[in-house]
Amino acid sequence: MIVDVSKKILIVGLGLLGGSYARVLKRFGFPVSAITKQQRDIDYAISENIIDAGSTELDATLIGEADLVIFALYPHVFVKWIEENQCLLKSGALITDVTGVKGSIVYQIQDMLREDVEFIAAHPMAGREVSGVENSSDKMFVGANYIVTPTKKNTSEAIQTCMELGRLLGFSNVTTLSPEEHDEMIGFVSQLTHCIAITLMTCNDKEDMEKFTGDSFRDLTRIARINDLMWSELFIANKAALLDQMNLFMDKFQSLKTMLENNDVDGMRAMMQHSTQRRALFDKK
Amino acid sequence: MIVDVSKKILIVGLGLLGGSYARVLKRFGFPVSAITKQQRDIDYAISENIIDAGSTELDATLIGEADLVIFALYPHVFVKWIEENQCLLKSGALITDVTGVKGSIVYQIQDMLREDVEFIAAHPMAGREVSGVENSSDKMFVGANYIVTPTKKNTSEAIQTCMELGRLLGFSNVTTLSPEEHDEMIGFVSQLTHCIAITLMTCNDKEDMEKFTGDSFRDLTRIARINDLMWSELFIANKAALLDQMNLFMDKFQSLKTMLENNDVDGMRAMMQHSTQRRALFDKK
Repeated sequence: MIVDVSKKILIVGLGLLGGSYARVLKRFGFPVSAITKQQRDIDYAISENIIDAGSTELDATLIGEADLVIFALYPHVFVKWIEENQCLLKSGALITDVTGVKGSIVYQIQDMLREDVEFIAAHPMAGREVSGVENSSDKMFVGANYIVTPTKKNTSEAIQTCMELGRLLGFSNVTTLSPEEHDEMIGFVSQLTHCIAITLMTCNDKEDMEKFTGDSFRDLTRIARINDLMWSELFIANKAALLDQMNLFMDKFQSLKTMLENNDVDGMRAMMQHSTQRRALFDKK
Repeated sequence: MIVDVSKKILIVGLGLLGGSYARVLKRFGFPVSAITKQQRDIDYAISENIIDAGSTELDATLIGEADLVIFALYPHVFVKWIEENQCLLKSGALITDVTGVKGSIVYQIQDMLREDVEFIAAHPMAGREVSGVENSSDKMFVGANYIVTPTKKNTSEAIQTCMELGRLLGFSNVTTLSPEEHDEMIGFVSQLTHCIAITLMTCNDKEDMEKFTGDSFRDLTRIARINDLMWSELFIANKAALLDQMNLFMDKFQSLKTMLENNDVDGMRAMMQHSTQRRALFDKK
């Protein structure tokens, strides 16, 4: 399946990400429907012209007509949905997701999925501190990364379609990684940073610190406002890779501490110079 | 001395901070002069109407006429300047600074200073990733904190004058702390955050990570571009307080790691909820 605007798209889970997908795809002219838990989200999305139709039920028509189904659910909810409801999917349908961990999900889903439906996994690396369809935006993906994580089970056509979807959604970088490479990368650039932010935010409860807080501290703790239900699940789902990254961080932090204890100015300066050089690579291009 | 626009102000060290002070004070109508190392910085500042006069030499007239002298130098350079040149200061002059650590500086300066000159220490908590007078701005202090750190040796008049200076400069919050309270606070909100950022930036040298970097990682490492000469000096000058904060952070990070190892979802969620609640206190008002 190559993406063309006659293809019917179903979004399962109409929150911040699902809603943003819907907005962009609707703007391109695709027929977009949604299944989600809250009727008020369906009502809102229809009234805002974000979707054409929607249901809080497992609507067999909506599901059975969809050529492309995008799952924007918590990992364990996604797995359970496929287990229980895959019989409703159209033969030949392509399904994809937005899950932030891959190794613990992709193989599990592919192994249990019907032969006539293909799952191509993807991770849109975009998010905000707010949630819900009412905060969704069709500009949300500009400047962001979209990672497709194919396995041996995927067809090259599905991989191409999924990458085309990422480009349509407006992502600035669309690439592929294996599920394992993805999980290592995400353990470092996303999960470790959240671990650090929540640690910094909770390690010193002294009162009145907020009065003296500058931009540095605010920057490092912006993501310390965190959806505890989702992130604890993501951490557990990527436990081994995240623990590896936490160990790398702790070892380096300990070595900085040792340098300070020993008044090793040269050592600290070398580390800071390395940091400065390496940070330059990470500026937005 | 209460600040009025007839008072002559001298800035020693015309970089990002010194230049920003000069811009604001000149706009208010004070006569502002500067002593700094590079002639090109003097030339630039005069041509841009940031200062009235300046010198790269120890100009006895400029120094001897100043009612208020603001030192914007590295800590050890500031101490050395006072040791060697305090004889040039005007009798009755008030001096202040911008040094980011206090305990290791304030008492040392006050103990060696002439009886007829008063040093009231202050820390403007503002900075940028760029440096130099050409990057200075008269808007730099909006939203930022200005901390005055008086000791028993300070007169209430000097404390009031210094706080008035902070308000004139445009700082949104002007407060006082003891040098010890200041150093504990700055060890946490500023120095620890820089330690974390440089550690995160250097703990994993895997190539191509930058391709997959989202806003979280960029936020946490913005300050990883760091002036190694200045920050290594600041870390050493606040060694005990910073080590305390690094230990608090490591203990908490280790406990998060233990929770993950033990699949302690409830423990992780409680920590994330605490983090989320506490972060709300730190939003800009």
